[in-house]
Amino acid sequence: MPETQTLSPYDVLVARFRRARQASRALSIATTKRKNAALEAIALALVQQSEAIVSANERDLSLGAENGLSMALQDRLRLDGSRIGALADAVRNVIALPDPIGQVIRGGRLPNGLRLEQVRVPLGVLGVIYEARPNVTVDIASLAIKSGNAVVLRGGSAAQNTNATLVEVLREAIASVEIDPEVIQTVDDFGREGAHEMMHARGLIDVLIPRGGHGLIQTVVAESTVPVIETGEGNVHIFLDESADAEMAAEILVNAKTQRPSVCNAVETLLVHRAAAERLLPVVLGRLREKGVVVHADEQVRAIFSDAVPATERDWETEYMSLDIAVTIVDSLDEAIAHIDRYSSRHTEAIITNDVHNAERFLAEVDAAAVMVNASTRFTDGGEFGFGAEVGISTQKLHARGPMGLPELTSTKWLVRGDGQVRA
Amino acid sequence: MPETQTLSPYDVLVARFRRARQASRALSIATTKRKNAALEAIALALVQQSEAIVSANERDLSLGAENGLSMALQDRLRLDGSRIGALADAVRNVIALPDPIGQVIRGGRLPNGLRLEQVRVPLGVLGVIYEARPNVTVDIASLAIKSGNAVVLRGGSAAQNTNATLVEVLREAIASVEIDPEVIQTVDDFGREGAHEMMHARGLIDVLIPRGGHGLIQTVVAESTVPVIETGEGNVHIFLDESADAEMAAEILVNAKTQRPSVCNAVETLLVHRAAAERLLPVVLGRLREKGVVVHADEQVRAIFSDAVPATERDWETEYMSLDIAVTIVDSLDEAIAHIDRYSSRHTEAIITNDVHNAERFLAEVDAAAVMVNASTRFTDGGEFGFGAEVGISTQKLHARGPMGLPELTSTKWLVRGDGQVRA
Repeated sequence: MPETQTLSPYDVLVARFRRARQASRALSIATTKRKNAALEAIALALVQQSEAIVSANERDLSLGAENGLSMALQDRLRLDGSRIGALADAVRNVIALPDPIGQVIRGGRLPNGLRLEQVRVPLGVLGVIYEARPNVTVDIASLAIKSGNAVVLRGGSAAQNTNATLVEVLREAIASVEIDPEVIQTVDDFGREGAHEMMHARGLIDVLIPRGGHGLIQTVVAESTVPVIETGEGNVHIFLDESADAEMAAEILVNAKTQRPSVCNAVETLLVHRAAAERLLPVVLGRLREKGVVVHADEQVRAIFSDAVPATERDWETEYMSLDIAVTIVDSLDEAIAHIDRYSSRHTEAIITNDVHNAERFLAEVDAAAVMVNASTRFTDGGEFGFGAEVGISTQKLHARGPMGLPELTSTKWLVRGDGQVRA
Repeated sequence: MPETQTLSPYDVLVARFRRARQASRALSIATTKRKNAALEAIALALVQQSEAIVSANERDLSLGAENGLSMALQDRLRLDGSRIGALADAVRNVIALPDPIGQVIRGGRLPNGLRLEQVRVPLGVLGVIYEARPNVTVDIASLAIKSGNAVVLRGGSAAQNTNATLVEVLREAIASVEIDPEVIQTVDDFGREGAHEMMHARGLIDVLIPRGGHGLIQTVVAESTVPVIETGEGNVHIFLDESADAEMAAEILVNAKTQRPSVCNAVETLLVHRAAAERLLPVVLGRLREKGVVVHADEQVRAIFSDAVPATERDWETEYMSLDIAVTIVDSLDEAIAHIDRYSSRHTEAIITNDVHNAERFLAEVDAAAVMVNASTRFTDGGEFGFGAEVGISTQKLHARGPMGLPELTSTKWLVRGDGQVRA
């Protein structure tokens, strides 16, 4: 359908979704070799077209500067030659990943001779709504192609020129190896209306993955009739049990809070067993303080460690994503688990303990995508888990939970081979 | 919270959901032994309380007769001593099934020494909205308990007295082995309002499974903010390829259409390759006709087999669930796949062929929960697949696709065990 002036935005967008779905057919059965050739073409094209990409990016950057975009966000937005090279390398890493499509998960022969196989197939058409960094455009498109899925992209408005150029580069690159470019679509030219239609494209888009802050994710969850995978919110706790080693506790806390404070697997609240509070808090909070962490603590903690600002109910609910931490004392493992159950976003929760019974209880009873004993919460990550790539970290229970790699972008299909069997 | 007159239906229902969630904690970590003891108590109680159950059922049956419930539906509704015995046997079958909870799906040691395990955990609280047969109440509650999930039930209004008694029997039975009866909740006493609040209980109910007709399922999909698993719609096709064996085709068609016409895996549309239409149609349609099947066919089919009613566009879309079948001729495998892609509900699709290339193309290119070669579509069934029990047949792509057994009622959790590891 030609995109003429007489068509409504709705018509144009739905036509794009239909083209994505139509084109996803051939991609869903493309060989690994062909999909890897498309990825290689993308990696090459990114470098070859880097001048055009940088120039589009400069337009976004100067618009951002005019609109008062913070220096930190301008830095996240910036693409230069070296960052484009890194993007191309990331695409080549996806080439090296095993292709999940066609993998046999279960199978066997039924008593009547029917041969049964459950195999991985693509989901169909992915919808991804994301903010800020334009490298997500390339990352997600690469993972979609490798997993045999078409993708509809809605990027942040601050990166609109960059993303438009990137999508053009990606589409031309895959067309050059005869993969239908319609498997990559963007709705950025329709602003909010694009996101709105994606959320209502049930039957055309198979799953929506919002990547961004709390507001974005909650909007998509509330509004979408397309199934959503919630990602990335992390109100993460570490509980120091009575038997915790002070030095291990300090090292893990410093790592989990300060190694990269702005990410979802950084710790936000510290819980300490009352019987160990006087032993552990001065050491642990002293070390955090040295790293510039602001401690938000209740009165009982401040009686032990005075260099803290008073905590309110709001602190237990807050994902700071900054050099801040909330601290309180609990009477028991049960109270720690109850606090976590009340405030956790069910991303990552950890206990530091030397007590095997308490370690196992914490692992069994805490309900989260990842539950850890004596390790930094920063390890909840597709790269660290050995997935080679990460689409996001699911904090919901259906379909995928925790870091999502290529297999999490697939569905399954039962293949049944017979020679005339009928049911008795 | 006491359920007094001053509470709104909303308050009462949300309080029930909260109690289910609270009680699901202990059930989620209950041992297999304890869960099986609860199931054994249920099986015993059903038989011991059969008089009360039958008497409640008789009230539903006489109300049904007054309200003009069809004889077929009255039969589906009826529970007598022998059917209650069969229900108790079905519960004991669930005892025999392996417990999915705690099963390790993936795992290993990371380079830094962290030990990683992905284990199955319960989803939490299931919501099930169903129609007609009261045995679903017992089946679903048993499968929920075995998989460590609490369950909120909304049964058909025609079975309200039976279901109320069954829920009471179930709750007393599990309480007798010290499992909190709050893990089983019903909202039947609130009519439509109960179903409405279930669909909006995001955060309290983890997944909604509608079991019933098209209208019920589409209402739940459109209205629910709780994630939904769509089940059971089956606009099922069988394609007779050019090389199909006529006798095999006739036997499979008769089985797929007439063995149990009212179920979702029964065939609804027959597609025949043009080059084989004159050879196959008289045999196959003749055999269907002998079994009382009404053939709805387009003109080209009626030119070959005249004993048919004219088909309209609506026939290709219809899941008859009766002794009716739509028949048309296609020019090629591609055209068969395109017809299926357009009209299929993506439940089960089959090809009858002797051509290995076409068989493999059909398996690869048709998008459905189950795709079959030379077998009756009636085999798409948890029992036939060897799952031992079936919650429903998912026709969606996220989380579960095809027959759902106990593992499909679970989520996963990553357990990470370290000895002080921090991220570099």
